[in-house]
Amino acid sequence: MAGIFQRSLRLRTALRHLSPQSPLSWTVTGRHTPLDLHCPFLPSTSWQFAVCSRKLHTGADRPSPAAAPDRLPFSRITQEDLAFFRKILPGRAVTDPDLLESSNVDWLKSVKGSSELLLRPQTTEEVSQILKYCNSRNLAVNPQGGNTGLVGGSVPVYDEIILSTALMNNILTFDSISGILTCQAGCVLENLSLYLEDRDYIMPLDLGAKGSCHIGGNVATNAGGLRLLRYGSLRGTVLGLEVVLADGRVLDCLATLRKDNTGYDLKQLFIGSEGTLGVITSVSILCPRKPTSVNVVFLGCETFEQLLKTFQLSRGMLGEILSAFEFLDSECMRLLNTHLKLRNPISDCPFYVVIETSGSDSTHDGEKLHHFLEEAMTSSLVTDGTVATEDSKIKALWSMRERVTEALTHDGFTYKYDISLPVERIYQLVTDMREHLGDRAKSVVGYGHVGDGNLHLNVTSPAKDPALLAAIEPFVYEWTASCNGSISAEHGLGLKKRNYIYYSKPSLAVALMGNIKAMLDPKGILNPYKTLPDDLK
Amino acid sequence: MAGIFQRSLRLRTALRHLSPQSPLSWTVTGRHTPLDLHCPFLPSTSWQFAVCSRKLHTGADRPSPAAAPDRLPFSRITQEDLAFFRKILPGRAVTDPDLLESSNVDWLKSVKGSSELLLRPQTTEEVSQILKYCNSRNLAVNPQGGNTGLVGGSVPVYDEIILSTALMNNILTFDSISGILTCQAGCVLENLSLYLEDRDYIMPLDLGAKGSCHIGGNVATNAGGLRLLRYGSLRGTVLGLEVVLADGRVLDCLATLRKDNTGYDLKQLFIGSEGTLGVITSVSILCPRKPTSVNVVFLGCETFEQLLKTFQLSRGMLGEILSAFEFLDSECMRLLNTHLKLRNPISDCPFYVVIETSGSDSTHDGEKLHHFLEEAMTSSLVTDGTVATEDSKIKALWSMRERVTEALTHDGFTYKYDISLPVERIYQLVTDMREHLGDRAKSVVGYGHVGDGNLHLNVTSPAKDPALLAAIEPFVYEWTASCNGSISAEHGLGLKKRNYIYYSKPSLAVALMGNIKAMLDPKGILNPYKTLPDDLK
Repeated sequence: MAGIFQRSLRLRTALRHLSPQSPLSWTVTGRHTPLDLHCPFLPSTSWQFAVCSRKLHTGADRPSPAAAPDRLPFSRITQEDLAFFRKILPGRAVTDPDLLESSNVDWLKSVKGSSELLLRPQTTEEVSQILKYCNSRNLAVNPQGGNTGLVGGSVPVYDEIILSTALMNNILTFDSISGILTCQAGCVLENLSLYLEDRDYIMPLDLGAKGSCHIGGNVATNAGGLRLLRYGSLRGTVLGLEVVLADGRVLDCLATLRKDNTGYDLKQLFIGSEGTLGVITSVSILCPRKPTSVNVVFLGCETFEQLLKTFQLSRGMLGEILSAFEFLDSECMRLLNTHLKLRNPISDCPFYVVIETSGSDSTHDGEKLHHFLEEAMTSSLVTDGTVATEDSKIKALWSMRERVTEALTHDGFTYKYDISLPVERIYQLVTDMREHLGDRAKSVVGYGHVGDGNLHLNVTSPAKDPALLAAIEPFVYEWTASCNGSISAEHGLGLKKRNYIYYSKPSLAVALMGNIKAMLDPKGILNPYKTLPDDLK
Repeated sequence: MAGIFQRSLRLRTALRHLSPQSPLSWTVTGRHTPLDLHCPFLPSTSWQFAVCSRKLHTGADRPSPAAAPDRLPFSRITQEDLAFFRKILPGRAVTDPDLLESSNVDWLKSVKGSSELLLRPQTTEEVSQILKYCNSRNLAVNPQGGNTGLVGGSVPVYDEIILSTALMNNILTFDSISGILTCQAGCVLENLSLYLEDRDYIMPLDLGAKGSCHIGGNVATNAGGLRLLRYGSLRGTVLGLEVVLADGRVLDCLATLRKDNTGYDLKQLFIGSEGTLGVITSVSILCPRKPTSVNVVFLGCETFEQLLKTFQLSRGMLGEILSAFEFLDSECMRLLNTHLKLRNPISDCPFYVVIETSGSDSTHDGEKLHHFLEEAMTSSLVTDGTVATEDSKIKALWSMRERVTEALTHDGFTYKYDISLPVERIYQLVTDMREHLGDRAKSVVGYGHVGDGNLHLNVTSPAKDPALLAAIEPFVYEWTASCNGSISAEHGLGLKKRNYIYYSKPSLAVALMGNIKAMLDPKGILNPYKTLPDDLK
């Protein structure tokens, strides 16, 4: 089959693109300016290196593929530009450096831009005017939602204008018969969840950043999260989008229909394109009914094989009420204990599982869960466990899974990887990485969404450690590519991962992505330096 | 909001595009040849008019938007071409007119092409060679799966080469842990279902044409069907595609991962593009576990309002086990009785509902169903009903819904409409149409997928009746557009509906579709005359 042939080619292509010997990976072509390690437009802070030098995160002579390319020749903001924006956005064109500070830095504090202008539109029309103007003036724009991304996609790299959706936070309609919600892009996910809970519905997605992230950003990054196993991805639940294109034209695909086969499904282009093809201004989304019965169990397994068997058993015995199957390893538990003082609710085990059920009948759900646990215990798949049906205990058990990211930030400098693999392979990568790194890493931990084959692999060290990074990469990407995995399951590519795309996508696919970008944003003003690899720009 | 503004514009745009006064809708531009009602390359049969004349289906002087445009200036097949195809497809380049007959006509026998060549590749490489050659020679190609489409998208309009996927019917892999199936595009849906049932899984889609339709065609048309309410659309369940582009290049996006956020999701472009952007050669799809317990109930309701209340009640009380909520009206029942001698299993009612539950515990499912039915009866939402748990009775009840299409074919010439609407509006269209047509129609019937807001509206007459058609259209499309509905929920646009796209999509969206087509198939050889409106070609 050509498919298999193509995939073996893919790995070779990826290696070629990232090889230090290859001129392809770092040749500065097209609209690139010549390589310039000095970036005079960045404030002289500790962040400067992160966004300016290609030597960040690497101990070798070759530049790191994750570092930013040189600033593209976009215009710089003039007083006339400022006057225009102040006129159309009275009091909402922010230039105060203190107010700009938090919008210039990502949540992980790993990337910092030097934007001097933050625009806070309230309406689609305002976004349209902004982009029309920026496109005509060749001003680069960084669309920003809740700025909770993990790959440097949500902050400017240089002086791009930040276009925030924070003030676009109106719920437009909710249909209590169909469960279809339409809202502006800047609605915070948790606020939408609270709104829906009062109406007996829930959002089809849930993630740790829910208190800050915007639904527009969720859609723009095709966020996954904790409910994907049950309710599927945003590609199925998002029914419509309103998007402002780079030139300011408003594309209205804000349908509120479950089915619509009239032509190509354009909204899919914008889902997961990380703000590089258009600015999402409104979203319509299909929301499930709020389950009347929720249970959470926390289990321990001796081996990952037993954990997988437990997963299989849960799919059979919990069936339609299974809504999450998450895992963490004993290293995660150690970090939770050490840094957050969270106590292991069960006895120590190599692996822990969080299973959630959601259903419409608490008696039935309880029975199903009881039978499942009985079978799992008697067949020695799990060695210990605890069940929660009350809200407070449910939250406490969930926090063992949800707070691993936080615990890691206390453990040291963290190298984060978000990998999709065939489910039976996901923990092998952690084991191999641990063996590969030996004493060089402080901690190597694995956790994630078993149900989706999605591993979060994290490596910490006391401080930034270029030698450690050079040991991790490209090892982690080559390992993933050898299993036909994805080097970004749910986080996207943003700034940090853009040049690794060839490990998961063939050259032809990447070339077509470039064609799509050129078609929708010919001047490249939307979220430059993100998602697409440097050799395409 | 711009959204609302744009939508009110959309209706006006649609009207403009279809107005007899408008030069836009029928101006022959670009690569069109001059209007020519005589088509010498079609066999002189009763079908000729259907594919050749623009006067089909209209009693007015203006041409029908559904009729075919003139043949585009593609090359005609030469002896050298035949020699090439015979060489790469020994014994599988069919030119016998008798063998070509069935591939030239659609299932409804409503459209007929005059192709003189049917190619039956077995591998992706062969498809690649075919398209590379056709693109270089400017030969038009009609990709064909099971040829079960209802909008004239699966047969040639003129002499396009038919590229059949019938011999590409191998299952490639099945992973019993993840439930992910990969197979060639020509696998028949029912064969895949049987294969999976033996392995305790099911396909995430099911439709009446399952015995003939190919999975590649299902994906190319984004087929909906009976399980969408439960398992979502193909946009969520299709995980990967292998596609041969118009120029023969093989795009390998055949991932077998639930999550992959590395760049734009190119496969979405091909889902629902009806073979106009590429030929799907392999599919990977996420399959749900086979439910161990299935129940079907057939209920009667006095009013459509009560039917909707029954739907709401079922969503609350059946929750996660609800897998289908379908309806038919008393006119459908009359046709089932009259033409297929199917007996109403309950007492006569204005509306009938088929509800299916699928779960993992028959006792629990039975209890839920019992409580639901009790509540529905005591609150007088339903007036009569019957329950099936055995396979044969389940099939018998389902046939009341599935065989309506067949009953209609016996009632006369059928005008078929596949409409998405806000669920509370779906039957109003049937009532309004009935009133609007009065005695002009033989039957006006409504049935469909309540859970998806998808109405199948059908109007019959003793024979083709241009005056009747003129009364139905554009009434049905204007009515749909006034509710922001979709004029094609699941059937696609194909040849027949392509020019009605403006009723459901704004001009900008259609223009972008044209750009995508031009990007992926610059010579326009793939399934010409389909999906996109004539004023774009």
